[in-house]
Amino acid sequence: MKIYNFSAGPSILPQSTIENTAEAVKNFNGIGLSILEISHRSKEFQAVIDEAVSLFKELLEIPQGYSVLFLGGGASMQFCMVPYNLMEKKAAYLNTGTWASKALKEAKLFGEVVEVASSKESLFNYIPKDYTVPADADYFHITTNNTIYGTEIRKDIDSPVPLVADMSSDIFSRPVDVSKYGLIYGGAQKNLAPAGVAFVVVKEDLLGKVTRPIPTMLDYRTHIKEGSMFNTPPVLPIYSAMETLRWLKGLGGLAAMEKINIEKAALLYDAIDSSRLFVGTAKEEDRSIMNVCFVMKEEYKELEAEFLKFATERGMSGIKGHRSIGGFRASIYNAMPKSGVQALVDCMKEFERTH
Amino acid sequence: MKIYNFSAGPSILPQSTIENTAEAVKNFNGIGLSILEISHRSKEFQAVIDEAVSLFKELLEIPQGYSVLFLGGGASMQFCMVPYNLMEKKAAYLNTGTWASKALKEAKLFGEVVEVASSKESLFNYIPKDYTVPADADYFHITTNNTIYGTEIRKDIDSPVPLVADMSSDIFSRPVDVSKYGLIYGGAQKNLAPAGVAFVVVKEDLLGKVTRPIPTMLDYRTHIKEGSMFNTPPVLPIYSAMETLRWLKGLGGLAAMEKINIEKAALLYDAIDSSRLFVGTAKEEDRSIMNVCFVMKEEYKELEAEFLKFATERGMSGIKGHRSIGGFRASIYNAMPKSGVQALVDCMKEFERTH
Repeated sequence: MKIYNFSAGPSILPQSTIENTAEAVKNFNGIGLSILEISHRSKEFQAVIDEAVSLFKELLEIPQGYSVLFLGGGASMQFCMVPYNLMEKKAAYLNTGTWASKALKEAKLFGEVVEVASSKESLFNYIPKDYTVPADADYFHITTNNTIYGTEIRKDIDSPVPLVADMSSDIFSRPVDVSKYGLIYGGAQKNLAPAGVAFVVVKEDLLGKVTRPIPTMLDYRTHIKEGSMFNTPPVLPIYSAMETLRWLKGLGGLAAMEKINIEKAALLYDAIDSSRLFVGTAKEEDRSIMNVCFVMKEEYKELEAEFLKFATERGMSGIKGHRSIGGFRASIYNAMPKSGVQALVDCMKEFERTH
Repeated sequence: MKIYNFSAGPSILPQSTIENTAEAVKNFNGIGLSILEISHRSKEFQAVIDEAVSLFKELLEIPQGYSVLFLGGGASMQFCMVPYNLMEKKAAYLNTGTWASKALKEAKLFGEVVEVASSKESLFNYIPKDYTVPADADYFHITTNNTIYGTEIRKDIDSPVPLVADMSSDIFSRPVDVSKYGLIYGGAQKNLAPAGVAFVVVKEDLLGKVTRPIPTMLDYRTHIKEGSMFNTPPVLPIYSAMETLRWLKGLGGLAAMEKINIEKAALLYDAIDSSRLFVGTAKEEDRSIMNVCFVMKEEYKELEAEFLKFATERGMSGIKGHRSIGGFRASIYNAMPKSGVQALVDCMKEFERTH
């Protein structure tokens, strides 16, 4: 049976990324060594990281003055590295969910944190729009996609202070106007690579302004200077990232990718909206095209466990919703083919016919 | 041609680790998904990390009261996490090379650092033994194996204060009396796994004693509490680590491994010591059984480039010495078979016959 991976992350990757990574583990580039054992200082790996950075810049059309880094430690480490490097006195945070809350909590260790708005009171089912960012904040932090709640900021917003965005779960899902951001970061394990590497896109002239001493490994300038090779980088995840970026480019880049993502999301949201049993949880205007969250309507709540079993038996893997909102979550990242979304929709319709 | 990987790290891994990781990338445990895309919260991955931790404890015979962690960021991140968590006022460091120096430098951000001894004046070609550790230091930090210089502390030393050891490049090469250490850490990319994960063995009662606030991701207690799953861990490197630990256990554990390592090292050092052309760089009593460093004797210096070419053409990969001491370095980690060392010795003898 074909298994469709709807997991929120680590999550589905392009078939070419998986196949070429498996081959590289056996014999990398035909050199007789595995990607698991080659030196990060070898010319072969240097070519990999160079190509990954170059494709990253090309696909996102990153302007001059920004660096692209691949670091260990995941997005959670960035929750601390961002204020360590950028906050002198005050920072502003938009609270749109669990991950945004964690980023905000971490920043409090470094100075004054202003929560400009929060949708916590309604279980983060929408993106607050009516807020003011203090003009004296060192930066304004947003989480563009909220995997747990299925909401997304899909337009690049204007900010009076440098904009910092956690794009862990929607990077490369659409074109981004990088010039509107001071720093973009994320864990790679949704749209880019296996777990174990984080990406950072940083405007270089924002750095070096804080007065606190910064540990070497937590200082973005260390990694800019050494091309992400100050220490041994996560070699295999960077190789896989390069493969995914090649796949994205072959597909026609981010405009083409966004078109496909919008079609896939529409297919699933339409099925939910026209359903007798299911209902979406996020406010319509803020719906994510990456994570689609839905539950059974009140009167059918008792069918949730049955549908989960029904769908799992038909190859739908990882659709259980996060424990904080329950129900279902279908993560339909870049690599999820339209046929996978169609299979889930068919499964929902079949269940509806028989229940 | 068979390629022998003598690279200092990332470096050779057991063939079973490479083969089984390649298979897991294609189809993990036969579940129809890749290890690259499975959720770290899946029961299948939980079984992997549980087995890795359990084998880690079993092989090193770790006593009660210690936790084993798998973290992102490499040993370089530990240079900052160790003092962040353990240094209130003062720490002692033994300076035995580049990596020890980097660890020492980082600690200075957090308090007073006493360098108890250094072999820098003789290019770190020996391990200082005549030193006193201040009784009021919060801990004493050593680097057990110095990859660049080919020296090693192969006996577990006694310390009047908690002993902290960077064992990046000799972990699992011999039995260790863990009870003599407060904390052992290292990057996994030598004897354990591909790059992208660090291991930490920490005595729990040493934690929670410093007064500074610690960022969540840098606090060992976070990762102990969450079983290394506070954030998404580096899934594939942990899988590979489990495979390597299974291989080690199958081989008979650390006493058996040490015996093989001593034999391999003796084979190579004997060839160097009886050679007309080559000479070892490290003081004999402090020689590493993991990294064997040697150069051409003064009168044959001009042959170094030629030997490098000669050996590389015969499948000896990664034997160029670190730029700071030149010559050659053969890293003969656990996974290097005796036949690989023999191939290098044969190559050296053939070169000697013809030059």
